[in-house]
Amino acid sequence: MRPANAHSRPDQQPEPEGPAAGGATLAAIARAAGVSAPTVSKVLNGRADVAPATRTRVEALLRQHGYRRRRSPAQQSRMIDLVFHELESSWAMEVIRGVENVAREEGLSLVLSESAGRLMPGQTWVDGVLARRPAGVILVLSDLDAAQRAQLTSRNIPFVVVDPAGDPGDDLPSVGTTNWQGGLAATRHLLELGHTRIGVIGGPARMMCSRARIDGYRSALEAAGVPVDPELVREGDFHHEAGHAAGMELLRLPDRPTAVFTGNDLQALGLYEAARELGLRIPEDLSVVGFDDLPLARWVGPPLTTVRQPLTEMAEAAARLVLDLGRGRRPAATRVDLATTLVVRNSTAARQG
Amino acid sequence: MRPANAHSRPDQQPEPEGPAAGGATLAAIARAAGVSAPTVSKVLNGRADVAPATRTRVEALLRQHGYRRRRSPAQQSRMIDLVFHELESSWAMEVIRGVENVAREEGLSLVLSESAGRLMPGQTWVDGVLARRPAGVILVLSDLDAAQRAQLTSRNIPFVVVDPAGDPGDDLPSVGTTNWQGGLAATRHLLELGHTRIGVIGGPARMMCSRARIDGYRSALEAAGVPVDPELVREGDFHHEAGHAAGMELLRLPDRPTAVFTGNDLQALGLYEAARELGLRIPEDLSVVGFDDLPLARWVGPPLTTVRQPLTEMAEAAARLVLDLGRGRRPAATRVDLATTLVVRNSTAARQG
Repeated sequence: MRPANAHSRPDQQPEPEGPAAGGATLAAIARAAGVSAPTVSKVLNGRADVAPATRTRVEALLRQHGYRRRRSPAQQSRMIDLVFHELESSWAMEVIRGVENVAREEGLSLVLSESAGRLMPGQTWVDGVLARRPAGVILVLSDLDAAQRAQLTSRNIPFVVVDPAGDPGDDLPSVGTTNWQGGLAATRHLLELGHTRIGVIGGPARMMCSRARIDGYRSALEAAGVPVDPELVREGDFHHEAGHAAGMELLRLPDRPTAVFTGNDLQALGLYEAARELGLRIPEDLSVVGFDDLPLARWVGPPLTTVRQPLTEMAEAAARLVLDLGRGRRPAATRVDLATTLVVRNSTAARQG
Repeated sequence: MRPANAHSRPDQQPEPEGPAAGGATLAAIARAAGVSAPTVSKVLNGRADVAPATRTRVEALLRQHGYRRRRSPAQQSRMIDLVFHELESSWAMEVIRGVENVAREEGLSLVLSESAGRLMPGQTWVDGVLARRPAGVILVLSDLDAAQRAQLTSRNIPFVVVDPAGDPGDDLPSVGTTNWQGGLAATRHLLELGHTRIGVIGGPARMMCSRARIDGYRSALEAAGVPVDPELVREGDFHHEAGHAAGMELLRLPDRPTAVFTGNDLQALGLYEAARELGLRIPEDLSVVGFDDLPLARWVGPPLTTVRQPLTEMAEAAARLVLDLGRGRRPAATRVDLATTLVVRNSTAARQG
């Protein structure tokens, strides 16, 4: 039996009695680990006062035995967790707004955190989630490793990834966008304007969304019978400065491109700057297509032709999906890509001469 | 005595026994209200299952009796609440980042919410805060009315306002910026470049930060012996479109301004667009100064001269202040304005001719 004080702290809820789906009881895990039941409970709740070796042993046993906490509404907090790879992202606000829309409808609090610059959120982040017991976790540009997935799953905390950077695997619920089609549409638009020397500045090679956009670019060229010139394919990092640096290189080539697809909007602005420095006018001397459709795309001069990522809608879809998973529903699709759309503004024009 | 089940829900913590600072006990409030002690506890915790008339009566008694919950570390959640007037704000991300920096240092979760477009957060928002019991609440461009302040104070939940829109009153802890000095510096810069026909496009008149910026503009002109021409003073709404509309009016005046201070960066971009449409070059034909120093200020063409609001630092200062207040410290200053700085880029130049 538990000591009387086990009920006096808000985070030591009595665990629902009886075997959970998956078979093992908390008591059985405790026996196998050679610790008390309250200690196993502490590990389940991400409490800090457990020796690291003990925690590791208990987590391994939870996983081995397929332990699943019984889903109990009283235990579920009224929160949804939104974790960013980095809050620097200029489109983070669109995602925040989408999740906040759903959180507000559902009367949930939105907890926001950053995985501090790493694609795999660190252990501290996961412990915080375990202690908060949110209704669900939405990760943006972050993946979870297998151990972290197991930790969340054993606590019945559902998770969804938005716009995965890596290849999330078939079983990870995710909401993305049609990056390949977006790259295709951007490049076709330029081909239709008569351009054939078309450059591309991608993002980091490890980001699958960037690879998909470049592949769309390639396919559009090949379908139009235009050979892909490796000199015109540049890797950036999705930040303004990379667009500027790669832009300077491309625009100083002897047979420079007359149009460039910049992989995202920030790199387009860097390219704008490079063009300005070299005395090239947009769109008269150079056509530019971005990707994202950040609010600033319509405020810059000239307003930027770009591929719109429906970020707010993606975030809303991810939030609804994670809440459905938490309610035990099995939606028809746990992997969804929302369509991009080409938004034509003033940075593209027919090739001159 | 409380029924046994009062301890089984995470949000029904036993209230600390004994009179709290301010004198009244929970039991005394209950007697005065003609309800049970658990009912008073529900009201304190923002629980929904209390009749509205009962809630109102209890809240009034809490206030009258100056009830203060005893500060108990076990009850304090590990959260900090950040409430925005609206998440549309393009500088919201800077503020979020600042609060997140401090939250991460302190091991607190950041809960983000929006007061849905009203300067006074609605009741739903306050109820959510009462239920969450955060370590503190930071409000951005929102004020609290007297009743809401009393509710938070009686639960010992400290609050700080960032960049107050109204006149927060001497006793409301707040962190602002030197708006008046910023308007002065922007206008002096233009005067030093030889401009005398200087326009200003402010924000909404009800926002004190906007009034302060315009007052700084006026003082700079008057100190330089340049009369203020009311035709050159326009009210906007701090959004891009207002900058465009007011810009078109100013630039089509017979004796148009040769320089404009736009009150914030988004209105500067609207003015950029108006200038483009009228065939005016920046800075050769028109000098422009913004306010905020959003990241996009350095990415637009030409890069925008502007007044930097140290938004991230303001947010960090507000977060540290609210946590200090929660720890019972009385800092020397509960009202702080961090200094603005003029950032000169490429949108301003000496007056031509």
